[in-house]
Parts: sequence; structure tokens; C-alpha cells
Amino acid sequence: MVNFTFHTPTKVLFGVGRIKGIGSEIKKFQVRKVLLVAGGGSIKKNGVYDAVTESLREHGVEWIELWGVVPNPVLSKVMEGISLAKQSGVDGVLAVGGGSVIDTAKAIASGVYLQDVWASFLGKEKITEALPVFVVLTISATGSESNGNFVITNEETKQKLGNHSPLVYPKVSIIDPSVQRTLPWNQTANGASDALAHIMESYFSGGGSETTLYVDEALSKAIIDATDKLMLNEDDLEARANLAWAATLALNGVSASQLKGDWASHDIEHAISALHPDVAHGAGLAVVFPAWITYVWKENEPTFRRWARNVWDTDDVLTAVERLKSTYKRWGLPVTLRELNLSKDEIPAIAQNATQLGEVGTVKELNQEDVEKILDLAY
Amino acid sequence: MVNFTFHTPTKVLFGVGRIKGIGSEIKKFQVRKVLLVAGGGSIKKNGVYDAVTESLREHGVEWIELWGVVPNPVLSKVMEGISLAKQSGVDGVLAVGGGSVIDTAKAIASGVYLQDVWASFLGKEKITEALPVFVVLTISATGSESNGNFVITNEETKQKLGNHSPLVYPKVSIIDPSVQRTLPWNQTANGASDALAHIMESYFSGGGSETTLYVDEALSKAIIDATDKLMLNEDDLEARANLAWAATLALNGVSASQLKGDWASHDIEHAISALHPDVAHGAGLAVVFPAWITYVWKENEPTFRRWARNVWDTDDVLTAVERLKSTYKRWGLPVTLRELNLSKDEIPAIAQNATQLGEVGTVKELNQEDVEKILDLAY
Repeated sequence: MVNFTFHTPTKVLFGVGRIKGIGSEIKKFQVRKVLLVAGGGSIKKNGVYDAVTESLREHGVEWIELWGVVPNPVLSKVMEGISLAKQSGVDGVLAVGGGSVIDTAKAIASGVYLQDVWASFLGKEKITEALPVFVVLTISATGSESNGNFVITNEETKQKLGNHSPLVYPKVSIIDPSVQRTLPWNQTANGASDALAHIMESYFSGGGSETTLYVDEALSKAIIDATDKLMLNEDDLEARANLAWAATLALNGVSASQLKGDWASHDIEHAISALHPDVAHGAGLAVVFPAWITYVWKENEPTFRRWARNVWDTDDVLTAVERLKSTYKRWGLPVTLRELNLSKDEIPAIAQNATQLGEVGTVKELNQEDVEKILDLAY
Repeated sequence: MVNFTFHTPTKVLFGVGRIKGIGSEIKKFQVRKVLLVAGGGSIKKNGVYDAVTESLREHGVEWIELWGVVPNPVLSKVMEGISLAKQSGVDGVLAVGGGSVIDTAKAIASGVYLQDVWASFLGKEKITEALPVFVVLTISATGSESNGNFVITNEETKQKLGNHSPLVYPKVSIIDPSVQRTLPWNQTANGASDALAHIMESYFSGGGSETTLYVDEALSKAIIDATDKLMLNEDDLEARANLAWAATLALNGVSASQLKGDWASHDIEHAISALHPDVAHGAGLAVVFPAWITYVWKENEPTFRRWARNVWDTDDVLTAVERLKSTYKRWGLPVTLRELNLSKDEIPAIAQNATQLGEVGTVKELNQEDVEKILDLAY
């Protein structure tokens, strides 16, 4: 049994038509002016930008805008946002987008109070204060809408690192699954892969913690079912809602309570996309996870066998891995490094990057050599 | 698809040895003096009282004590607590016990600011303020440690009514499953029955909301497995932890998101225990629920069939009901009104009490006659 603290203070408003509530929610926190953080402009096409700004205007919340957050969000954009936030005297940050936008917003919200925001990613400076963060979610994937995590890439040092603070939990997140109906399919599939990976990162570190193991199997099946339904009909609103809510639960604490977590596959994927920013996180995870399972499953055999049986209906772990890979392939995701256009020569550099801060994982603590072997399996 | 708000701000500290953290947690809220609410004294035998008071003393938190909360907690004790809280000038309420103690604490915390606390149960007065509530949980059952609900019986009017306010969510709840190893078996079984009922109250109102249906099936199986393991060995700490955590998730919002909920079985049970305060809530639910399912299942056939298949491994709903009853019986719970020592003559009065504020339930809206028929089935 593992002791744990469960604390998810984010208020989630879920459902069709709820985005128009954002102004009134922000107003409840006595926030006058927000930095509105966004990506490349899709929110101007799907009506989300209009709904958000109309609600802000209606409730007298001023805003300034920071555009151009990219997938695998970068430190330079965070620095730009921190400057803009300081200059304009905002007292809150509003992320309108997916995980990259939210993570950038969290880094800005904490960064305005730091000497050097990157130092906090390296554990050299502590986050002690942050502007309140609000979220209007447009892609379900990272779970960042309901946790204190954020991941940023330092383009200069080629480091993609995670950070965490209870101070950057969004105060309010609005999830309207209907706005996700217009996503390109690969973004839906990448999101599903990321959410499924979050569950697996916790699950495989488990033993007797059966309540959470049962819940995690349930969430895995919910994600697989909903994504399969969306493949048949991207407009299926019920499936959008099920995938969205499962992705939130996959990383708001519910899937991880009672479990210590592993996270090696995320560390390895972060190394890949730090060196190849064009690799989508969910796609990278689809490549890494099957190889990681194949390499480590004998370290915690009962839990991997339970997963094979309860999620994939087989008693054989390697058969379950094949079924996981078939699922990724069915969704159009890559399952080999080759499909990501990486050459075999790059494996040592990726493994070195993944283990730069020490061994990774808990199911098996992996050094650079272990990671190279996993990447060989994934090639 | 149902729109919903998910907001569970309670911070839960879960695990062995965590009770000693209560003083420091209370101190973080600048609370100087708490009303410590407790039941009949079992916490003095199992070491919980000593651990709590030592921690309060260590962190300079003063307290006064209110003892004698009974199962099916009563309004007179709430009134006594409100007087004591006002006289002694406490600025917080600390519940040390199970659901009855927590519910009493919540009623006191909100009641000190009300003209007439009972009026708030009848919807005639609104809760607009409350003292902060803290919890050290000693019996996992009601989920009250992580929600804003509380149920109190008015002994004079023979009404057992629920109440809700976001203001009485516990700020911090500590759940140490090891302290539950000394519970009498019937309390463990009643708690498991209550937790399972909370899931069913949400589940059966569902349709396409598959993420939550999957999660609810998982929690149901977790509760059944853990309780069966505890029957074999009441000292099984891992099973205690699994039952405890599942019971919290069963009513902290996770099991109910995406679903509108039914709650007729609870209303019917409340009528039984309002008239017969010796009936334990979990025992009453074990009597009512199978009869309710039998009466209403054709109103939402696909979801009842899904439940039969995914929880009870049968395609036939009535076979599933028999398996549910066998489970209750195996745990030593009653499954008929007769076993609760109720006479058939009392059925109309119970049905009248259950429907005094109008029809109950959503799967099928039940009037007095419907409730009588359900109670006949349960006889």
C-alpha cells in the first residue's frame, strides 16, 4: 500500500455551451485583466475565440493576447509571455487551447514571480507564487486542464522537462467536447494515445492497489472504445464527451492514487521530441510504450498479466502488446522509430538525453544502456 | 450527454500514520480552536483520539469536545453542537468518526450561521456561510469525507433529510485505513453496502456516458472484491485500503459525473430509518435496492443489462439481482424488510414518509403507490 495525497481543486465545467461561462468564473476571482494564451488560430475558425471574448467583454474582464504557442511548447514563447504579462499588468492567465497552450500559461503564471523560470524546471528555483490560471480546453489529451503539471522545451539546450506546482492548478477549466468535433483526426488520435499513456504510467507500477487498478482498466477501455467510435464518426458527440472526460480523469489524480507511477516512457518520449520537435507527443508515446512494456514486464509480472487479461482479453503479455500496437495502427499512429523518420544512429543521443538527469522509471530503473535497448526494440 | 460540474476541493491525506498530520493541516487555515465532534467512544480505544489530540496540542490548536453522535444522527445533537460552538467561540469543526459524525459536524458548521438549521433541510433557509470542516475518518461508507452532503434525522417530525452546500466540503480529510481493522464486521459490511449503493444510484440513470459507467463498474468490483477479502481476514490492510478509497470515490463526484442520478432507493431507506432509527443505513439499502431494481429495470433496460453483464457476468438482470442479494447475504446483511423486524402493516407509512416532499427517483419517478409496491417486493 502506498500513502498518497489526493487534491484536485480545479473546478471543471463540462458540457456543450459552457464556454460562455468563462467571464463570470474569472470575475469570481476578482481578476480584472488576463493574458489570453493561444496557439495557431484554429480557435478563430471554430467559434471558441468569439465565445470566450464575448464572455470576457460581458463581464468586464480585460485581456491581452499571446498567440503562436506550438506543439512541444518552447521556452522562448514562455519568456515572451512573461514579459508581456509584466508590462501589461495582468492579474490572471487564460489558456484557450490544448496541453501546449495550458502548459505555456502555467509557466508564464509562475514565471512572472521567478528570477529565472527555467531554473525552476531544473529544481534550482522554487515556485512560491503564481497568477491564477483559467482554461478553455480545445483538445483532450494531456490532462493539464486539471493538474499542476507542465512540460516545456528549452530550444537552446535541447531539454524537454516537466515541472509541477500546486499553485498552477487551473482555478476553473471549461471542457466543451463539441468544439473538438472539428479537430484533424491525427490530433484526436495523438490525444487518445497520450491519455492512455498517462494511465499506463501509473498502472504498471501497481500491485495490490486494486481499486485504482480497476479504475485504470475502466478508463483504458473507455478511451479505446470512444476513439474507435470517433474513427467511424468524428461527429459522435457522446464519444467526444467520453474521450474528453476519460482524458481528464487520466491525469487529475484519480488514475494515480495508491500508485507510485513509472514515467520512464514519458522521459524517453520527451527526449525524442526535444531533439525532433516535429514529433507529436502522442505519436512518440505510441512508439515507445510497446517497446518499454516488452523490455520491463517481467519486473512486475502479476500487474502486466492483469492488464493483458482485463484490458486486452488475453493471458499473454506479449499478445496484449501486439493488440495495443494494432490499436495504435488502427488509429493511424506510428509504432516504430522508423515511421518517425529517425535514423538508428540517433538512438545513443536520445538515450543520453532521456537519462541526463539520472536513471528513469520505477518498475525498472533504466540507465542509458537500458533506454538504448528499448529504442532498439522500437526501431 | 449530461452537462456537469466536477469540483472536489477536499484535500485527502490517505495512508497509515497520517492522522498525526491533522494539527498542522488545521493550522494552515489559521484556525485556533475547533469543536471536536465524535461518537460513542471507540476512538478512545483504537488510539485515534490520542493521535488527534496530541497533534492538536503540538500545533497549538485548542479544542472542545462534543460526544454522543449516534448512527442516523439526530437534530437534537446538531442543536447541542451549535450552542456549544457559539458559546465557546470555535472557528472550525473537526469530525473524528464516520459518516454520522461528519454529517453532524457539517450541520453544526453551517448551522451556527443560520436562524433555524432545520429550515435549510426543508429548502426554506439558504446556507451562505460555514465554519471550516476537517475530518479524521474512522469508517469508510458514506463518502461524506469528500463531498458537501449531509443527512440528519429530525426526531420530532420523523423526517430524515439530506442537505448540500459547497461550503461544507471538508477542507482536509485524513483516511488511515489501518484504524478500520478493529471495526465490528457488521459496520464494515454496512459501509460496503452504502458505498455500492452510491455507485448504483448514479449508474442506473446512465445511458451513453460510458466513461463513468466503466468507472462505476470498476468501483463496484473493487468494493465487492475488497469486502470479500475482509470477510476472510479483517486485518487485511490492503483490502481495507481498497475498500476505503473506493468508498471515497463512490461519492466524491467521480462516480456521478456525466450522470443525473436516481436516489429513490436512498429516499426509501431514509424513510425506513427515520421511522426505525435502529436500522443501519447500509442494511436498509441492502433491503431496498434489489427490490427497486426489480421494479424499475425495464425503464432503462440497456444500462441494467450492461450492469448485469459487466459486474455480475450474466445477461439476465434478475439473475444479477439474485447475485447482488447473495453478496449481501454472504456479508451478513439483511435482504428483506422482515429481517429488519418490520411488519407488513408499516409499509404505507414508510411509503408516505418517503414521498412526503413529492415523487422520488429519475429512472422512474415513483409515487407513494410505487414505493409501496417496491416495499412489498422487499418484504
